[in-house]
Amino acid sequence: MTDCVIIGSGMAGISAALTLKAQGVSFLLIGNPDLSMKIGKAEKITNYPAFCEGSGEALRNLLKRQLRENGIEVKAGRAVGVYAGKNFVSVQTDRDEWIEAKSAILACGVGTAVQAEGESEFLGRGVSYCATCDGALYKGKTIVAAAGSSAFEKEAEMLENFAGKFYFVPLYKNCTFQPKKSGTEIFTDGLVRIEGGLRAERAVFKNRTVTADGIFLLKDSVPLSAVCGGLKTDGRHVITDRSMHTNLKGVFAAGDCTGRPYQYAKAAGEGNVAAHSVTEYLRDSEHGEAKVAAESEKMP
Amino acid sequence: MTDCVIIGSGMAGISAALTLKAQGVSFLLIGNPDLSMKIGKAEKITNYPAFCEGSGEALRNLLKRQLRENGIEVKAGRAVGVYAGKNFVSVQTDRDEWIEAKSAILACGVGTAVQAEGESEFLGRGVSYCATCDGALYKGKTIVAAAGSSAFEKEAEMLENFAGKFYFVPLYKNCTFQPKKSGTEIFTDGLVRIEGGLRAERAVFKNRTVTADGIFLLKDSVPLSAVCGGLKTDGRHVITDRSMHTNLKGVFAAGDCTGRPYQYAKAAGEGNVAAHSVTEYLRDSEHGEAKVAAESEKMP
Repeated sequence: MTDCVIIGSGMAGISAALTLKAQGVSFLLIGNPDLSMKIGKAEKITNYPAFCEGSGEALRNLLKRQLRENGIEVKAGRAVGVYAGKNFVSVQTDRDEWIEAKSAILACGVGTAVQAEGESEFLGRGVSYCATCDGALYKGKTIVAAAGSSAFEKEAEMLENFAGKFYFVPLYKNCTFQPKKSGTEIFTDGLVRIEGGLRAERAVFKNRTVTADGIFLLKDSVPLSAVCGGLKTDGRHVITDRSMHTNLKGVFAAGDCTGRPYQYAKAAGEGNVAAHSVTEYLRDSEHGEAKVAAESEKMP
Repeated sequence: MTDCVIIGSGMAGISAALTLKAQGVSFLLIGNPDLSMKIGKAEKITNYPAFCEGSGEALRNLLKRQLRENGIEVKAGRAVGVYAGKNFVSVQTDRDEWIEAKSAILACGVGTAVQAEGESEFLGRGVSYCATCDGALYKGKTIVAAAGSSAFEKEAEMLENFAGKFYFVPLYKNCTFQPKKSGTEIFTDGLVRIEGGLRAERAVFKNRTVTADGIFLLKDSVPLSAVCGGLKTDGRHVITDRSMHTNLKGVFAAGDCTGRPYQYAKAAGEGNVAAHSVTEYLRDSEHGEAKVAAESEKMP
């Protein structure tokens, strides 16, 4: 079992990984091997200390180089479930893998692109974040897919393939998705609300309402309260203390998901602090276990 | 009056300055124009995200370049007094200048080199951090000066000049201080304790005790509780909330002075957060003042 699973390949997750690596703590970093889509988008970065090269793309290149030089790989995957137990944390990914670790760092950013009322309520009941996991459930049925960026067009293609009737809603500019079926509709209307009874039944957009069997919200960052049961949040943000510990044992958080400001330096700093806290937590746990073992031995 | 005074030219102070600059907030950054002496000392840095060049010296060069490119100057000076009033913060420097600002960010690191029991107790009563401020008080008297780095040798020369009897205690390697007076003694013994009655009278080292009229502790970072009255600290660290606000109105803190881990990324992150909090604080204050003004106008 690995010591720590880091969820998210943005600045916070990378910072945590670099620090854990330096401390010799084993970990898995899951996210986008090409790094978080948010990195690289900035046109000009002036306030990340010691970064003088300007563009987000240059920042991404430096981070990729640094990960490579430190022998750190990003394992492809998005967390769709995080379960904090008494002694370990279990993470389910959109590849339907399960990762068990002694601790976890949530560094999954904050969803900005797709966000709808009713989303958490109907998650797992007609609402899904993952075409690979759940697409096949809606074979021949009506599917709505709202995507936060062009990176999800592959998933949209997969969903169109499964669907009887497919609505694709790109919530970004320069959509390159090409419908393969004649019944497919594309429109760029803001998603407002998901409605239904026991299951999601309708996606309500600004200018229309669509009845659907499955509603897919394809985005980089998902509301953590939805994927991680029992996690204390304040709206869209995870609540942590100054050591980046959440309310769940062995679960830490860093970066945009803990709140504003949404800044590279803040995310890097929190990732670093979370990694140090993980190291301390592991040490204390081991002492704790060793102590318990030592005391057990004393028993008659 | 400037909007903010940033105390300290280490990673936290620089990060705060870059962010305030980007936000168009006026500020003064005081510290060492050559940047904090701690930056540049690291042989190899692997865990500061996007920094691949390795050495502390390379980091310092990038930071200096970035400050230059952003038109940010470091004003030479060390804070020896920070006074938080109702509507502004007043900072006294070792050049005997007074800086008034609407807010302050304490980013002065944490003193590691010189630290003695009794230091805070006797500060201003025989103990001083500043040769320029207080050297002349001890003309013809016995002076002890313990220095945390070679950067303070100039101050030591000044003190030797004032002193009747001078003891110099370099707490670093490769001392280049040359005594100018025959009675001057140099020894490299760890300072343990300062003793006295109403005033400091003796400096107790590991292997000897020296009776002195003035004891100078020459170091980059001073205990903030000593220079900033009323500031809540936990031992050597300032207590802040997640927005880096201290218990004093308009006073924020960032970097090593807020506690471990003592890391570049953590300091950069906190500097960034403190700067955002300052911006918010200034906006709220202005709203606050505007609101009060508007309400006064309504009064008969």
